[in-house]
Amino acid sequence: MQEKEVLVLLTDRWADWEAAYAVAGIKSIGQYDVRTIAADKKPKASIGGIRAEIDCAIGDYADFEKLAMLILPGGFSWQEARHDDIAAFVKKAQAFGVPIAAICGATIFLGKHGFLDGVKHTGDDLELFQGEEGYNGKDCYESAQVVADGLFITANETAAVDFAYEIFKALKIDGDEGLGMWRDYFKGGAV
Amino acid sequence: MQEKEVLVLLTDRWADWEAAYAVAGIKSIGQYDVRTIAADKKPKASIGGIRAEIDCAIGDYADFEKLAMLILPGGFSWQEARHDDIAAFVKKAQAFGVPIAAICGATIFLGKHGFLDGVKHTGDDLELFQGEEGYNGKDCYESAQVVADGLFITANETAAVDFAYEIFKALKIDGDEGLGMWRDYFKGGAV
Repeated sequence: MQEKEVLVLLTDRWADWEAAYAVAGIKSIGQYDVRTIAADKKPKASIGGIRAEIDCAIGDYADFEKLAMLILPGGFSWQEARHDDIAAFVKKAQAFGVPIAAICGATIFLGKHGFLDGVKHTGDDLELFQGEEGYNGKDCYESAQVVADGLFITANETAAVDFAYEIFKALKIDGDEGLGMWRDYFKGGAV
Repeated sequence: MQEKEVLVLLTDRWADWEAAYAVAGIKSIGQYDVRTIAADKKPKASIGGIRAEIDCAIGDYADFEKLAMLILPGGFSWQEARHDDIAAFVKKAQAFGVPIAAICGATIFLGKHGFLDGVKHTGDDLELFQGEEGYNGKDCYESAQVVADGLFITANETAAVDFAYEIFKALKIDGDEGLGMWRDYFKGGAV
Protein backbone atom coordinates (compact mmCIF):
# COMPACT_ATOMS: atom_id res chain seq x y z
CA MET A 1 0.00 0.00 0.00
CA GLN A 2 1.26 3.46 -0.91
CA GLU A 3 2.04 5.92 1.86
CA LYS A 4 0.37 8.79 0.03
CA GLU A 5 -2.91 8.96 -1.83
CA VAL A 6 -4.79 11.18 -4.24
CA LEU A 7 -8.56 11.57 -3.93
CA VAL A 8 -10.79 12.21 -6.92
CA LEU A 9 -14.07 13.69 -5.76
CA LEU A 10 -17.01 12.58 -7.89
CA THR A 11 -20.41 14.22 -8.17
CA ASP A 12 -23.51 13.24 -10.09
CA ARG A 13 -22.74 13.34 -13.86
CA TRP A 14 -19.00 13.95 -13.43
CA ALA A 15 -17.20 14.77 -16.67
CA ASP A 16 -15.56 11.56 -17.92
CA TRP A 17 -12.59 13.10 -19.70
CA GLU A 18 -11.57 15.95 -17.42
CA ALA A 19 -9.52 14.12 -14.77
CA ALA A 20 -9.01 10.99 -16.88
CA TYR A 21 -5.43 11.63 -18.02
CA ALA A 22 -4.53 12.78 -14.52
CA VAL A 23 -5.76 9.77 -12.55
CA ALA A 24 -4.42 7.27 -15.11
CA GLY A 25 -0.99 8.90 -14.98
CA ILE A 26 -0.89 9.15 -11.21
CA LYS A 27 -2.06 5.62 -10.49
CA SER A 28 0.06 3.89 -13.13
CA ILE A 29 3.27 5.45 -11.82
CA GLY A 30 2.73 3.51 -8.58
CA GLN A 31 3.87 6.21 -6.19
CA TYR A 32 0.37 7.21 -5.06
CA ASP A 33 -2.85 5.35 -4.56
CA VAL A 34 -5.92 6.89 -6.22
CA ARG A 35 -9.27 6.60 -4.47
CA THR A 36 -12.74 7.95 -5.19
CA ILE A 37 -14.57 10.06 -2.67
CA ALA A 38 -18.03 11.68 -2.77
CA ALA A 39 -20.70 13.25 -0.59
CA ASP A 40 -21.98 9.72 0.06
CA LYS A 41 -21.00 6.18 -0.89
CA LYS A 42 -23.62 5.68 -3.61
CA PRO A 43 -22.04 5.06 -7.06
CA LYS A 44 -21.78 8.23 -9.14
CA ALA A 45 -22.61 8.05 -12.83
CA SER A 46 -20.51 10.08 -15.25
CA ILE A 47 -21.95 12.24 -18.03
CA GLY A 48 -21.17 9.28 -20.28
CA GLY A 49 -23.06 6.83 -18.10
CA ILE A 50 -20.11 5.13 -16.36
CA ARG A 51 -21.20 4.36 -12.79
CA ALA A 52 -18.16 4.69 -10.55
CA GLU A 53 -18.03 3.05 -7.16
CA ILE A 54 -17.10 5.35 -4.28
CA ASP A 55 -14.35 4.29 -1.90
CA CYS A 56 -15.10 6.75 0.86
CA ALA A 57 -17.75 9.30 1.89
CA ILE A 58 -16.43 12.76 2.77
CA GLY A 59 -17.89 12.50 6.27
CA ASP A 60 -15.82 9.39 6.99
CA TYR A 61 -12.48 10.64 5.69
CA ALA A 62 -9.78 11.34 8.25
CA ASP A 63 -6.49 10.56 6.46
CA PHE A 64 -5.56 14.14 5.56
CA GLU A 65 -1.97 13.49 6.63
CA LYS A 66 -1.55 11.01 3.77
CA LEU A 67 -3.53 13.05 1.25
CA ALA A 68 -1.20 14.31 -1.52
CA MET A 69 -3.88 15.99 -3.63
CA LEU A 70 -7.63 16.45 -4.00
CA ILE A 71 -8.90 16.44 -7.59
CA LEU A 72 -12.31 17.86 -8.46
CA PRO A 73 -13.48 16.96 -11.98
CA GLY A 74 -16.21 19.09 -13.51
CA GLY A 75 -19.71 17.82 -14.12
CA PHE A 76 -23.31 18.84 -14.54
CA SER A 77 -24.16 18.96 -10.84
CA TRP A 78 -21.77 21.70 -9.71
CA GLN A 79 -24.14 24.43 -10.86
CA GLU A 80 -27.30 22.72 -9.62
CA ALA A 81 -26.54 23.06 -5.92
CA ARG A 82 -24.17 24.78 -3.50
CA HIS A 83 -22.65 21.52 -2.23
CA ASP A 84 -21.88 23.03 1.19
CA ASP A 85 -20.86 19.60 2.49
CA ILE A 86 -18.17 19.30 -0.17
CA ALA A 87 -17.04 22.89 0.48
CA ALA A 88 -16.51 22.01 4.16
CA PHE A 89 -14.44 19.02 3.08
CA VAL A 90 -12.32 21.14 0.71
CA LYS A 91 -11.77 23.63 3.52
CA LYS A 92 -10.49 20.86 5.77
CA ALA A 93 -8.09 19.63 3.04
CA GLN A 94 -6.94 23.22 2.53
CA ALA A 95 -6.20 23.57 6.24
CA PHE A 96 -3.89 20.56 5.94
CA GLY A 97 -2.07 22.26 3.04
CA VAL A 98 -3.35 19.74 0.50
CA PRO A 99 -3.07 20.89 -3.16
CA ILE A 100 -6.48 21.14 -4.82
CA ALA A 101 -6.95 20.66 -8.57
CA ALA A 102 -10.28 21.68 -10.10
CA ILE A 103 -11.48 21.76 -13.68
CA CYS A 104 -14.47 23.26 -15.45
CA GLY A 105 -17.63 23.29 -13.26
CA ALA A 106 -15.59 22.51 -10.16
CA THR A 107 -13.76 25.85 -10.52
CA ILE A 108 -17.16 27.58 -10.41
CA PHE A 109 -17.91 25.69 -7.21
CA LEU A 110 -14.57 26.81 -5.71
CA GLY A 111 -15.24 30.41 -6.79
CA LYS A 112 -18.72 30.40 -5.28
CA HIS A 113 -17.34 29.34 -1.94
CA GLY A 114 -14.54 31.91 -1.94
CA PHE A 115 -11.65 29.48 -2.33
CA LEU A 116 -10.31 31.37 -5.34
CA ASP A 117 -10.29 34.81 -3.71
CA GLY A 118 -6.78 36.16 -4.15
CA VAL A 119 -5.69 33.10 -6.13
CA LYS A 120 -4.91 33.29 -9.85
CA HIS A 121 -7.27 30.97 -11.69
CA THR A 122 -8.70 30.19 -15.14
CA GLY A 123 -11.72 32.31 -15.83
CA ASP A 124 -13.42 30.62 -18.77
CA ASP A 125 -16.58 30.29 -16.76
CA LEU A 126 -16.08 33.58 -14.97
CA GLU A 127 -19.40 35.10 -15.97
CA LEU A 128 -21.14 32.17 -14.32
CA PHE A 129 -19.99 33.07 -10.86
CA GLN A 130 -19.65 36.81 -11.11
CA GLY A 131 -21.99 38.32 -8.60
CA GLU A 132 -22.25 35.07 -6.66
CA GLU A 133 -22.26 35.54 -2.92
CA GLY A 134 -18.77 35.32 -1.53
CA TYR A 135 -16.95 35.56 -4.85
CA ASN A 136 -14.26 38.21 -4.73
CA GLY A 137 -11.60 36.91 -7.10
CA LYS A 138 -12.29 38.84 -10.28
CA ASP A 139 -8.87 40.47 -10.39
CA CYS A 140 -7.23 37.07 -10.37
CA TYR A 141 -8.83 35.83 -13.56
CA GLU A 142 -6.32 34.52 -16.12
CA SER A 143 -7.22 33.77 -19.68
CA ALA A 144 -5.35 30.47 -19.81
CA GLN A 145 -5.99 26.77 -20.34
CA VAL A 146 -4.60 25.95 -16.92
CA VAL A 147 -3.29 27.99 -13.98
CA ALA A 148 -1.30 26.76 -10.98
CA ASP A 149 -1.15 29.24 -8.10
CA GLY A 150 -0.45 28.40 -4.49
CA LEU A 151 -2.40 25.31 -3.49
CA PHE A 152 -4.75 25.53 -6.47
CA ILE A 153 -4.65 24.20 -10.01
CA THR A 154 -7.58 25.29 -12.20
CA ALA A 155 -8.35 24.49 -15.83
CA ASN A 156 -11.09 24.73 -18.41
CA GLU A 157 -12.94 21.79 -19.94
CA THR A 158 -10.72 21.64 -23.05
CA ALA A 159 -7.52 21.42 -21.01
CA ALA A 160 -7.59 17.86 -19.66
CA VAL A 161 -4.01 17.16 -20.81
CA ASP A 162 -2.60 20.45 -19.46
CA PHE A 163 -4.53 19.89 -16.24
CA ALA A 164 -2.87 16.47 -15.86
CA TYR A 165 0.52 17.99 -16.65
CA GLU A 166 0.25 20.56 -13.84
CA ILE A 167 -1.00 17.86 -11.47
CA PHE A 168 1.94 15.58 -12.38
CA LYS A 169 4.33 18.50 -11.82
CA ALA A 170 2.88 19.27 -8.39
CA LEU A 171 3.06 15.58 -7.43
CA LYS A 172 6.58 15.28 -8.90
CA ILE A 173 5.75 12.06 -10.69
CA ASP A 174 8.48 12.74 -13.27
CA GLY A 175 11.13 15.35 -14.12
CA ASP A 176 10.50 18.42 -16.28
CA GLU A 177 11.78 16.79 -19.46
CA GLY A 178 9.72 13.62 -19.09
CA LEU A 179 6.57 15.57 -18.25
CA GLY A 180 7.11 17.93 -21.18
CA MET A 181 7.47 14.99 -23.54
CA TRP A 182 4.31 13.42 -22.13
CA ARG A 183 2.35 16.62 -22.67
CA ASP A 184 3.66 17.18 -26.21
CA TYR A 185 2.85 13.59 -27.14
CA PHE A 186 -0.73 13.73 -25.92
CA LYS A 187 -1.36 17.20 -27.30
CA GLY A 188 0.44 16.74 -30.62
CA GLY A 189 -0.51 13.16 -31.34
CA ALA A 190 1.47 10.03 -32.09
CA VAL A 191 1.65 10.46 -35.87
CA MET B 1 -35.82 4.90 -22.72
CA GLN B 2 -33.89 5.36 -25.96
CA GLU B 3 -34.57 2.99 -28.85
CA LYS B 4 -30.89 2.62 -29.66
CA GLU B 5 -27.91 2.09 -27.41
CA VAL B 6 -24.13 2.21 -27.48
CA LEU B 7 -22.11 -0.32 -25.51
CA VAL B 8 -18.71 0.47 -24.05
CA LEU B 9 -16.83 -2.74 -23.37
CA LEU B 10 -14.61 -2.51 -20.30
CA THR B 11 -11.69 -4.74 -19.41
CA ASP B 12 -9.42 -4.81 -16.38
CA ARG B 13 -7.45 -1.52 -16.20
CA TRP B 14 -9.34 0.17 -19.05
CA ALA B 15 -7.82 3.47 -20.17
CA ASP B 16 -9.78 6.27 -18.49
CA TRP B 17 -9.35 8.91 -21.17
CA GLU B 18 -9.63 6.98 -24.41
CA ALA B 19 -13.41 6.66 -24.79
CA ALA B 20 -14.21 9.44 -22.30
CA TYR B 21 -15.02 12.23 -24.79
CA ALA B 22 -16.99 9.75 -26.90
CA VAL B 23 -19.31 8.38 -24.20
CA ALA B 24 -19.90 11.81 -22.64
CA GLY B 25 -20.85 13.26 -26.03
CA ILE B 26 -23.08 10.36 -27.01
CA LYS B 27 -24.95 10.13 -23.71
CA SER B 28 -25.45 13.87 -23.19
CA ILE B 29 -27.04 14.29 -26.61
CA GLY B 30 -29.90 12.06 -25.43
CA GLN B 31 -30.41 10.13 -28.65
CA TYR B 32 -28.67 6.96 -27.47
CA ASP B 33 -28.37 5.21 -24.16
CA VAL B 34 -24.82 4.27 -23.13
CA ARG B 35 -24.29 1.04 -21.18
CA THR B 36 -21.23 -0.79 -19.93
CA ILE B 37 -20.58 -4.40 -20.89
CA ALA B 38 -17.76 -6.77 -19.97
CA ALA B 39 -16.77 -10.42 -19.93
CA ASP B 40 -18.55 -10.68 -16.58
CA LYS B 41 -20.55 -8.41 -14.29
CA LYS B 42 -17.77 -7.70 -11.78
CA PRO B 43 -16.85 -3.98 -11.61
CA LYS B 44 -13.86 -3.13 -13.80
CA ALA B 45 -11.24 -0.74 -12.44
CA SER B 46 -9.67 1.76 -14.83
CA ILE B 47 -5.93 2.43 -15.05
CA GLY B 48 -6.67 5.43 -12.84
CA GLY B 49 -8.45 3.35 -10.22
CA ILE B 50 -12.07 4.22 -11.08
CA ARG B 51 -14.15 1.07 -10.50
CA ALA B 52 -16.96 1.06 -13.06
CA GLU B 53 -20.08 -1.00 -12.53
CA ILE B 54 -20.99 -3.31 -15.42
CA ASP B 55 -24.55 -3.22 -16.77
CA CYS B 56 -24.40 -6.45 -18.71
CA ALA B 57 -22.16 -9.49 -19.22
CA ILE B 58 -21.38 -10.37 -22.86
CA GLY B 59 -22.92 -13.82 -22.42
CA ASP B 60 -26.28 -12.28 -21.45
CA TYR B 61 -26.52 -9.69 -24.21
CA ALA B 62 -29.12 -10.28 -26.93
CA ASP B 63 -30.20 -6.78 -28.01
CA PHE B 64 -28.05 -6.55 -31.14
CA GLU B 65 -30.99 -5.10 -33.06
CA LYS B 66 -30.88 -1.96 -30.87
CA LEU B 67 -27.09 -1.77 -30.74
CA ALA B 68 -25.89 1.35 -32.61
CA MET B 69 -22.19 0.93 -31.82
CA LEU B 70 -19.71 -1.10 -29.79
CA ILE B 71 -16.83 0.90 -28.32
CA LEU B 72 -13.65 -0.81 -27.12
CA PRO B 73 -11.38 1.44 -25.03
CA GLY B 74 -7.77 0.43 -24.68
CA GLY B 75 -6.28 -0.79 -21.44
CA PHE B 76 -3.51 -2.85 -19.93
CA SER B 77 -5.28 -6.21 -20.19
CA TRP B 78 -5.62 -6.45 -23.98
CA GLN B 79 -2.09 -7.73 -24.38
CA GLU B 80 -2.18 -10.01 -21.37
CA ALA B 81 -4.67 -12.51 -22.80
CA ARG B 82 -6.42 -13.45 -26.04
CA HIS B 83 -9.90 -12.61 -24.74
CA ASP B 84 -11.53 -15.20 -27.01
CA ASP B 85 -14.87 -14.65 -25.28
CA ILE B 86 -14.83 -10.96 -26.20
CA ALA B 87 -13.73 -11.81 -29.75
CA ALA B 88 -16.79 -14.06 -30.13
CA PHE B 89 -18.98 -11.19 -28.91
CA VAL B 90 -17.39 -8.73 -31.37
CA LYS B 91 -17.98 -11.27 -34.17
CA LYS B 92 -21.66 -11.44 -33.27
CA ALA B 93 -21.95 -7.63 -33.29
CA GLN B 94 -20.15 -7.56 -36.65
CA ALA B 95 -22.63 -10.08 -38.08
CA PHE B 96 -25.43 -7.66 -37.15
CA GLY B 97 -23.61 -4.86 -39.01
CA VAL B 98 -22.84 -2.95 -35.80
CA PRO B 99 -20.05 -0.33 -36.16
CA ILE B 100 -17.08 -1.13 -33.92
CA ALA B 101 -14.80 1.61 -32.55
CA ALA B 102 -11.49 0.55 -30.97
CA ILE B 103 -8.61 2.56 -29.61
CA CYS B 104 -5.05 1.74 -28.57
CA GLY B 105 -4.71 -1.75 -27.06
CA ALA B 106 -8.16 -2.71 -28.32
CA THR B 107 -6.95 -2.32 -31.92
CA ILE B 108 -4.21 -4.87 -31.17
CA PHE B 109 -6.90 -7.21 -29.88
CA LEU B 110 -8.93 -6.74 -33.09
CA GLY B 111 -5.82 -7.30 -35.22
CA LYS B 112 -4.90 -10.48 -33.34
CA HIS B 113 -8.32 -11.93 -34.04
CA GLY B 114 -8.29 -11.03 -37.72
CA PHE B 115 -11.01 -8.36 -37.57
CA LEU B 116 -8.75 -5.80 -39.26
CA ASP B 117 -7.75 -8.00 -42.21
CA GLY B 118 -8.55 -6.01 -45.32
CA VAL B 119 -9.70 -3.00 -43.27
CA LYS B 120 -7.72 0.25 -43.18
CA HIS B 121 -6.67 0.94 -39.61
CA THR B 122 -4.25 2.94 -37.48
CA GLY B 123 -0.99 1.14 -37.10
CA ASP B 124 0.72 2.86 -34.19
CA ASP B 125 0.93 -0.43 -32.38
CA LEU B 126 1.53 -2.41 -35.53
CA GLU B 127 4.80 -3.94 -34.43
CA LEU B 128 2.99 -5.38 -31.43
CA PHE B 129 0.81 -7.64 -33.48
CA GLN B 130 2.98 -8.29 -36.48
CA GLY B 131 3.56 -11.99 -36.68
CA GLU B 132 0.60 -12.70 -34.39
CA GLU B 133 -1.40 -15.70 -35.45
CA GLY B 134 -4.24 -14.71 -37.72
CA TYR B 135 -3.04 -11.19 -38.43
CA ASN B 136 -2.98 -10.48 -42.13
CA GLY B 137 -3.71 -6.76 -42.36
CA LYS B 138 -0.27 -5.23 -42.78
CA ASP B 139 -1.07 -3.65 -46.12
CA CYS B 140 -3.95 -1.77 -44.55
CA TYR B 141 -1.85 0.11 -42.02
CA GLU B 142 -2.38 3.88 -42.07
CA SER B 143 -0.15 6.29 -40.23
CA ALA B 144 -2.99 8.39 -38.88
CA GLN B 145 -4.48 9.46 -35.57
CA VAL B 146 -7.79 7.87 -36.44
CA VAL B 147 -9.11 5.82 -39.37
CA ALA B 148 -12.73 5.03 -40.23
CA ASP B 149 -13.15 2.23 -42.76
CA GLY B 150 -16.24 0.12 -43.24
CA LEU B 151 -17.63 -0.92 -39.88
CA PHE B 152 -14.42 -0.08 -38.02
CA ILE B 153 -13.06 3.05 -36.39
CA THR B 154 -9.52 2.72 -35.00
CA ALA B 155 -7.35 5.27 -33.21
CA ASN B 156 -4.16 5.56 -31.21
CA GLU B 157 -3.96 6.49 -27.54
CA THR B 158 -3.30 10.17 -28.19
CA ALA B 159 -6.38 10.56 -30.38
CA ALA B 160 -9.25 10.48 -27.90
CA VAL B 161 -10.84 13.65 -29.35
CA ASP B 162 -10.51 12.51 -32.99
CA PHE B 163 -11.79 9.08 -31.98
CA ALA B 164 -14.90 10.72 -30.48
CA TYR B 165 -15.31 12.87 -33.58
CA GLU B 166 -15.41 9.84 -35.91
CA ILE B 167 -17.79 8.07 -33.53
CA PHE B 168 -20.10 11.11 -33.44
CA LYS B 169 -20.02 11.26 -37.24
CA ALA B 170 -20.91 7.58 -37.58
CA LEU B 171 -23.75 7.99 -35.07
CA LYS B 172 -24.89 11.23 -36.74
CA ILE B 173 -25.23 13.03 -33.40
CA ASP B 174 -24.68 16.40 -35.13
CA GLY B 175 -24.04 17.87 -38.58
CA ASP B 176 -20.59 18.28 -40.12
CA GLU B 177 -20.25 21.91 -39.06
CA GLY B 178 -21.23 21.31 -35.44
CA LEU B 179 -18.94 18.30 -35.15
CA GLY B 180 -16.05 20.20 -36.73
CA MET B 181 -16.51 23.02 -34.25
CA TRP B 182 -16.62 20.54 -31.38
CA ARG B 183 -13.37 18.92 -32.50
CA ASP B 184 -11.57 22.22 -33.08
CA TYR B 185 -12.66 23.48 -29.65
CA PHE B 186 -11.44 20.42 -27.77
CA LYS B 187 -8.22 20.12 -29.77
CA GLY B 188 -7.38 23.83 -29.89
CA GLY B 189 -8.51 24.85 -26.44
CA ALA B 190 -10.93 27.46 -25.12
CA VAL B 191 -8.45 30.32 -24.84
